[in-house]
Amino acid sequence: MATAAPARRQDPSALRAEIRVGRFDGTTAGHCPGFAQANLVVLPRELAFDFLVFAQRNPKPCPVLEVLDPGDPEPRLTAPGADVRTDLPAYRVYADGELLEESRDLLSSWRDDAVAVLIGCSFTFEEGLLAADVPVRHLEQGVTVSMYRTAVECVPAGPFSGPLVVTMRPIPAPLVPRAVEVTARYPAVHGAPVHVGDPAGLGIDDLGAPDWGDPVEVRPGEVPVFWACGVTPQAVALASGSPWMLTHSPGRMMVLDVTNRDLRA
Amino acid sequence: MATAAPARRQDPSALRAEIRVGRFDGTTAGHCPGFAQANLVVLPRELAFDFLVFAQRNPKPCPVLEVLDPGDPEPRLTAPGADVRTDLPAYRVYADGELLEESRDLLSSWRDDAVAVLIGCSFTFEEGLLAADVPVRHLEQGVTVSMYRTAVECVPAGPFSGPLVVTMRPIPAPLVPRAVEVTARYPAVHGAPVHVGDPAGLGIDDLGAPDWGDPVEVRPGEVPVFWACGVTPQAVALASGSPWMLTHSPGRMMVLDVTNRDLRA
Repeated sequence: MATAAPARRQDPSALRAEIRVGRFDGTTAGHCPGFAQANLVVLPRELAFDFLVFAQRNPKPCPVLEVLDPGDPEPRLTAPGADVRTDLPAYRVYADGELLEESRDLLSSWRDDAVAVLIGCSFTFEEGLLAADVPVRHLEQGVTVSMYRTAVECVPAGPFSGPLVVTMRPIPAPLVPRAVEVTARYPAVHGAPVHVGDPAGLGIDDLGAPDWGDPVEVRPGEVPVFWACGVTPQAVALASGSPWMLTHSPGRMMVLDVTNRDLRA
Repeated sequence: MATAAPARRQDPSALRAEIRVGRFDGTTAGHCPGFAQANLVVLPRELAFDFLVFAQRNPKPCPVLEVLDPGDPEPRLTAPGADVRTDLPAYRVYADGELLEESRDLLSSWRDDAVAVLIGCSFTFEEGLLAADVPVRHLEQGVTVSMYRTAVECVPAGPFSGPLVVTMRPIPAPLVPRAVEVTARYPAVHGAPVHVGDPAGLGIDDLGAPDWGDPVEVRPGEVPVFWACGVTPQAVALASGSPWMLTHSPGRMMVLDVTNRDLRA
């Protein structure tokens, strides 16, 4: 029997409840329009200090939306009543920098000193771009945004160091100013681009070969525009060889009660 | 022999060098125009984690400009080459929430696990107000800004909790919008006001009796405008009974190489 494509969910707490009981395990992209979604990084409290310092020193790739109390799985400010251990569709568990398993929940891997950090995601400003009639190519093509490791080093903190990761969206030249203006309104979610044009200036040799995500078409008259990417803190935390780390699975985000509108400056 | 009033210093590193050798011990207010000044809070690393979480949850009163590495006295990002132990004119040393001593330097009280946090100061946006022809009464009167404990509780984190402290500046009614616009451009330094008019709404009974600083005149046609105040994190850290804490003395700030312009959104 054929299964219908899942309908677009509207209500964050209803979607989280479906996820919690195992009735929804796909990407959260496109669901709950208007509401912010977040990347999840969970570290032991001891390392979470350095991670917060890293985020403070690198706010564009690491826009922290909430830091949960040690051991507390409830995002009391951004999604009261939710549980970061069960309310995302899929997780990754890392030990000593190696992927240990993909998991449907974090109940068995949770610890008393687990500090969950919720980090803003570019879904928020993409809604702003679309509302301003700026095309977003990877959404048009139904693929994942192109992401690149750059030659720009983040400011290190404790054991955390590594290159800035950026996303790229090709923007028609006359719309570049608008794309900058619109995304600058979301400083809590990566904000304005870090670079416009000139991939070589970021140390990117081939736009057609992203390090993560899918390549997208850059058409004549379009300029590649680069934004700081929330993959940066995950990549950096992973490279730090943390003895223990939990994250969401790509595209399976924490859907918050906070709206994109709330995150506008 | 009468001593001439000290000339207004211009260069941050030159002023810090004078302070370091004991040739300058007054307030830093009014010196090095154009450059940002910062509040200093030093805590043991163990507590600094909760303090950073508190700051993340309460960004308006706690705009963090830099977090130094544990044990490191050099603000490598905001004042390279400086030393937070010697380059402020005066300090306070607290033990178990009690003032232990006022001190000219922190060399003997420094520890390996000391984490220095530099927090933005309203001197930055006051320069913006003056440049926009918005009068700043306490500067006209040559007194300290009025500060009030409010009935608004900060979002707690770990052992840190307590009321929001605000500053008040009386603004002529037609200039209130401009005062909001100008200070909103400095989200890294308290940003837009938290409240306009209606002191009772903040639980302030008597504008003439501030909890810190001096009372200032509110003239007919002026509206009291309230901004989140950097005294908040100090008051909260003090009330938490931290076994050990170091701060600047009031008005004796860390003068940074970062400009006020750098802190504009």
